[in-house]
Amino acid sequence: MSRRQIRTSVMSRNDEAASRNRSFLDSLQVYGINIISSPGAGKTSLLESLGKSLGSELAVVEGDVKTRRDAERLEQIGIRTWQIETGGACHLDASSVESALGRMGLERGIQKFLIVENVGNLICPSAYDLGERLKVGLLSLPEGDDKVLKYPSLFSIIDLLILSKLDLAPHMNFDLERAKDECRSLNPDVEIISLSAVTGRGMPELTEFLWRKYLEIWSSN
Amino acid sequence: MSRRQIRTSVMSRNDEAASRNRSFLDSLQVYGINIISSPGAGKTSLLESLGKSLGSELAVVEGDVKTRRDAERLEQIGIRTWQIETGGACHLDASSVESALGRMGLERGIQKFLIVENVGNLICPSAYDLGERLKVGLLSLPEGDDKVLKYPSLFSIIDLLILSKLDLAPHMNFDLERAKDECRSLNPDVEIISLSAVTGRGMPELTEFLWRKYLEIWSSN
Repeated sequence: MSRRQIRTSVMSRNDEAASRNRSFLDSLQVYGINIISSPGAGKTSLLESLGKSLGSELAVVEGDVKTRRDAERLEQIGIRTWQIETGGACHLDASSVESALGRMGLERGIQKFLIVENVGNLICPSAYDLGERLKVGLLSLPEGDDKVLKYPSLFSIIDLLILSKLDLAPHMNFDLERAKDECRSLNPDVEIISLSAVTGRGMPELTEFLWRKYLEIWSSN
Repeated sequence: MSRRQIRTSVMSRNDEAASRNRSFLDSLQVYGINIISSPGAGKTSLLESLGKSLGSELAVVEGDVKTRRDAERLEQIGIRTWQIETGGACHLDASSVESALGRMGLERGIQKFLIVENVGNLICPSAYDLGERLKVGLLSLPEGDDKVLKYPSLFSIIDLLILSKLDLAPHMNFDLERAKDECRSLNPDVEIISLSAVTGRGMPELTEFLWRKYLEIWSSN
């Protein structure tokens, strides 16, 4: 088998598992979200903040190369969390998420949102569909306003761009309009929300956005 | 060929090219450095700052998934820079660096340091020896003081940990001692320098460190 054939086979198996994940979440009326960012861009802080408004309606799958640190932070505030420790792999795949979904006991009518916090990496996770309905790219202000075009494999395919750590804006030169314009140049239909999980600014807008997406699908049930 | 055999063959070819790179740089008395960090941790700003003190003694190989943005920043201040655009690959390998070294025209007695700025990624680049003498991991304060143990594949094998963006320390909770202690727990011999490329704090210490490493090898020439 050539490298290319192996890669095609891996991606095809991934897509099959992703389809099963999507059907499974649909059967429970749970809206799946895949969040991708660099290490330390604020994914876990964002989930802590979302947990305050969504409470038990939120469940999380945590992807980490090593340690249960992020999962522990979320469990401490009562968010149902399932940890996948990848042990070196630089992204999650749909099969590992399928295994988590089979074990974490989601219930129809209880959890409404399942957020997968992917491994901190702007490159490799963008190639893997996990079965989500919403793919989110998170870019934190300290990373710089030039990063969108440098990492197009992610920013060209996301449904939602979150510009995070807005509270640090006074301490750095980050041109919000540049980042937004460059993302729209790759991805004209992208939605964009700027926020700070620390001050809470922008969090109501995010929560409203997620509920709107949810109700577009399941409003009549 | 199994996936494992393909991987073994890829790594073995990489190591051969890395050895050739090391010999080539040694023949020119150029000290090779491989810098690895998350996107936006401040690698290019650090190189701009180093360029001020090292001048024409510094040459840079820039690894980016896409765009020549970083290379252009460095060329503007007169640093000899060679760009490798990986076109999707999440790390540099020794062969791509070998190709750059063959073309960029380093000269014995002119350039003393060749710094490779790897693709922004804490995971994949750590597996590839590029032929450097010094492997540097750079962690910026906004990423959080919990990241060392989350990305052990990098932080356990580096020779030097740089804690960057020290100017932002007043605006965030980053426990410098925690990050240092956790890195030493993985990697007892690691050297550690904290700095800010913006204020210049810690930069003299870094420059001195690099010269010391250089002179340990080529002091008598």
